Amino acid sequence: MQCIASWIFLYFACLSPIITFGGLLSVATSKNMAAMESLVSGFVCGIGYGLFSGQPLTILGSTGPVLVFETIVHDFCKDQGWDYMSFRLWIGLWIAFILFILVAVDASALVCYITRFTEENFATLIAFIFIVKAVENVIKIGERNPINPLGYKNVCHCIPPVNANLTENWDPLNETYCTDIGGTFQTEMCASTASVPDVFLMSIVLFLGTFLISVHLKDFKNASFFPSKVRQFISDFAVIIAIVSMTLLDYLSNIETPKLEVPAEFKPTLPDRGWIISPFMNKVWTIPLAIIPALLGTILIFMDQQITAVIVNRKENKLKKGCGYHLDLFVLAILIVICSLMGLPWFVAATVLSINHVNSLKLESECAAPGEKPQFLGVREQRVTHVLIFLMIGLSVLITPVLRNIPMPVLFGVFLYMGVASLKGLQFFDRMLIMFMPAKYQPDYMFLRQVPIRRVHMFTLIQLACLIMLWLIKSFGKTSILFPLMLVVMIGIRKSLDFIFTQRELKILDDVMPETIKRGEEDEESLGNEDKSSEVEELEISRYHLRMVI
Amino acid sequence: MQCIASWIFLYFACLSPIITFGGLLSVATSKNMAAMESLVSGFVCGIGYGLFSGQPLTILGSTGPVLVFETIVHDFCKDQGWDYMSFRLWIGLWIAFILFILVAVDASALVCYITRFTEENFATLIAFIFIVKAVENVIKIGERNPINPLGYKNVCHCIPPVNANLTENWDPLNETYCTDIGGTFQTEMCASTASVPDVFLMSIVLFLGTFLISVHLKDFKNASFFPSKVRQFISDFAVIIAIVSMTLLDYLSNIETPKLEVPAEFKPTLPDRGWIISPFMNKVWTIPLAIIPALLGTILIFMDQQITAVIVNRKENKLKKGCGYHLDLFVLAILIVICSLMGLPWFVAATVLSINHVNSLKLESECAAPGEKPQFLGVREQRVTHVLIFLMIGLSVLITPVLRNIPMPVLFGVFLYMGVASLKGLQFFDRMLIMFMPAKYQPDYMFLRQVPIRRVHMFTLIQLACLIMLWLIKSFGKTSILFPLMLVVMIGIRKSLDFIFTQRELKILDDVMPETIKRGEEDEESLGNEDKSSEVEELEISRYHLRMVI
Repeated sequence: MQCIASWIFLYFACLSPIITFGGLLSVATSKNMAAMESLVSGFVCGIGYGLFSGQPLTILGSTGPVLVFETIVHDFCKDQGWDYMSFRLWIGLWIAFILFILVAVDASALVCYITRFTEENFATLIAFIFIVKAVENVIKIGERNPINPLGYKNVCHCIPPVNANLTENWDPLNETYCTDIGGTFQTEMCASTASVPDVFLMSIVLFLGTFLISVHLKDFKNASFFPSKVRQFISDFAVIIAIVSMTLLDYLSNIETPKLEVPAEFKPTLPDRGWIISPFMNKVWTIPLAIIPALLGTILIFMDQQITAVIVNRKENKLKKGCGYHLDLFVLAILIVICSLMGLPWFVAATVLSINHVNSLKLESECAAPGEKPQFLGVREQRVTHVLIFLMIGLSVLITPVLRNIPMPVLFGVFLYMGVASLKGLQFFDRMLIMFMPAKYQPDYMFLRQVPIRRVHMFTLIQLACLIMLWLIKSFGKTSILFPLMLVVMIGIRKSLDFIFTQRELKILDDVMPETIKRGEEDEESLGNEDKSSEVEELEISRYHLRMVI
Repeated sequence: MQCIASWIFLYFACLSPIITFGGLLSVATSKNMAAMESLVSGFVCGIGYGLFSGQPLTILGSTGPVLVFETIVHDFCKDQGWDYMSFRLWIGLWIAFILFILVAVDASALVCYITRFTEENFATLIAFIFIVKAVENVIKIGERNPINPLGYKNVCHCIPPVNANLTENWDPLNETYCTDIGGTFQTEMCASTASVPDVFLMSIVLFLGTFLISVHLKDFKNASFFPSKVRQFISDFAVIIAIVSMTLLDYLSNIETPKLEVPAEFKPTLPDRGWIISPFMNKVWTIPLAIIPALLGTILIFMDQQITAVIVNRKENKLKKGCGYHLDLFVLAILIVICSLMGLPWFVAATVLSINHVNSLKLESECAAPGEKPQFLGVREQRVTHVLIFLMIGLSVLITPVLRNIPMPVLFGVFLYMGVASLKGLQFFDRMLIMFMPAKYQPDYMFLRQVPIRRVHMFTLIQLACLIMLWLIKSFGKTSILFPLMLVVMIGIRKSLDFIFTQRELKILDDVMPETIKRGEEDEESLGNEDKSSEVEELEISRYHLRMVI
């Protein structure tokens, strides 16, 4: 049941960025790739990755840095008069080649330098980006459909010429008609008929409604009403209930809110290209030249992929099955070859989607007493949800009439929820919150037991400074291509922290050991190594199952 | 600080029903009494009651039954051709006379028949009415300003006659102008220019925004952020923060939402009446005749007043100062004489306002540990807030430019909050919630310890049936005059419960003894009368201070 809920939730969660990025790609690549190509790529990559990857909990998706990369390559090709898709095909092949080499030389071992510090910095950044993007998108709806304080009295209208010969069909709000009969269309200090009233406010209602319903129904698991099965069901389907109810509200209100735009027919967006890209449209010497953008692209894809993989595989998630950094990268390289040949956008591991996938599959103990915090038991690890999600993505082309009713603000609400939900459980975010708490209210975190509070705050503040730096680099269009390189900078900053903090402090604050095990150990020590509670023993056993990173 | 917050919150809480009832009275009495008279009556009654009453925690206000009574009297006078205000003056004098007799013969002693069963039935009913009225009023805004799905393209407009001589000032959206030039104003399948788009949705945003901000900030007291003083401050000012922020949002959005209508000048609404009513406008034989409606009015005022007084004085509130049922009724009688002479609406104790007044002045212990429920210590009993609230009401006439900016949906949001907040702490409502809880999650209520759960549910269901009956009688216009008589019926039903439940069960479910004292006793008994904890002792002491009902 939880898997079905996870499947439907993540289907919507994946569908919306695929379509959104499809729209952005369409603008960036002059319609060479658009929503249709994105859907097909999602289907191909998702099924391939779901079936053959080492860690099918990771979800592939379009990411911002890849989009920027595509934009730069497209603009460069346009300037040079080269065929973009053909050049891109060679870049893709080179990237795949370099990735194969990286797999062969065990380059994934470098991920061990990605500690909690770096990892959480990126995860927090991406969560914030999700939140900001969601709000920005809703505000954009408001810009297109501004609120008109004076209402219908203040609509732009036609002033016909004096002594005009007006027919019965005459419409004072139609600008074309107005110019035809030689009148002047008054457009000053009035609302355009292209803007629809109520749309912006309805969007806000749907956006906040979806978010609040999701948050509250998700928490309903811990309420004291109804038997636990009913509560678990409501909690699992929280996001889907929110989407369905808000879509229904939108449908009943009959307001022209922006809806999800799904391509109607299964064919490439540009009519003059097929599903296979010809590799020899450009001069032959462009083929070796493609290796230069390919190097940059490789760093980008490698980083995006590995950071997400580290986050998914982190020990807190108590995964029982081994990871597969090499296998994943290998599968990804093959998928990039396929995508390049078919002229589809490249997909890499998407952080927020992956975190939400893991979270939606979490197993928790039932609470025995009200108010008791449920204990986290593990994750339902399987390939089925992943494959089903992307099967559905592929089949989406068939159910377009239904999908076209889903308003965009509802999906932005889901974005907001995903951003906020992925912040939960990040130690960095917990430490930020602690800064606002008086000492007596602070929860019993391990690091608070062993590290003085001032040192904890100092560590948090340094991390916050890094986060702000990352944000600024990501925000400015020109510098965002440097973003993957920032990973190396982050690792460097983390290394230099060795001079400020003691090794013991860093081990506690930046350790990858799960919180619960550490607490178990501590409690055990204070008991004088006697009375090993069954809980601690259990944790000790599960510890053997936890794999080391690489 | 808490008193200041309580003062400002209740000022807004009282102002809005006074103005609302003023509007309703204006319709019901052909403008003989309207918003201005309501404000003056609030000032006179509030100050008088605040200074001289026995229980200044009770707040006076207009109530529904009184409004219905006024309507009936006005319509009767109109049919007979009598002067309404003059006849009403005599009714008022007779009511005051009967009330004096009731005070003299100790009729207030009858309140001892009003047990928790009856009292909570009425309190729950009135809380539900507040919630329903709040939602209804927002929906009414939507009826006046419907959403137009097609937007500006679909506005009703003028079709001028063929070969019309149109000037530059021609406005196709102006109906009068259209008829003047001999055109036809198309009104089918289109939105009227009188309706303003965005208003309804903005009202919903403001309404829900005010409610949610109030609820969440009120709970912020128990959050773990910031020092307790800051949290207490935010919690105390929750409703005011909600009103101010939402009013600001409304102001910035510039949408024509319905605003609070405050009279601009200090003078009676009808220009031909003064502030003193002449008693001899009708024939002399109408004077003794006024005793018949006065009897009905007395029951109405007596019931409304005493139920609220019982609720305010109930033992859970741990009031240290004695009550004054007789004194309150005496003061009320004098106020009715004054109001009748000046032609002002009669004010009686308003349940929801009074409960919110008491709640906003509650003293609670600071929590030592997070999650711990704060202990209720008592109520800040004083006259200052009461007097200040109604002083402000009187002074409202002077700050009309500010008050005119407050949107009505914000005040409806406050209504909703008051309705929901007054449900909290009603044992009846707690018992309704318990019906949806599995046994293991049920809180440690005293009645659950001593009465089998089936018997508790049965008691709740009977009470629920009574509530539905009350609701139906209140809802239909014609029967609502019978509403005060329902109190007698309720007392009868409660008496007949003696045959269904044992005296012990009734004592527990319908007892007025505060929950905490009972629990203290129970815990004490189970400890074998030893180890009297200081807490129990303290409760025992405070028990002496609790007055018996009469």
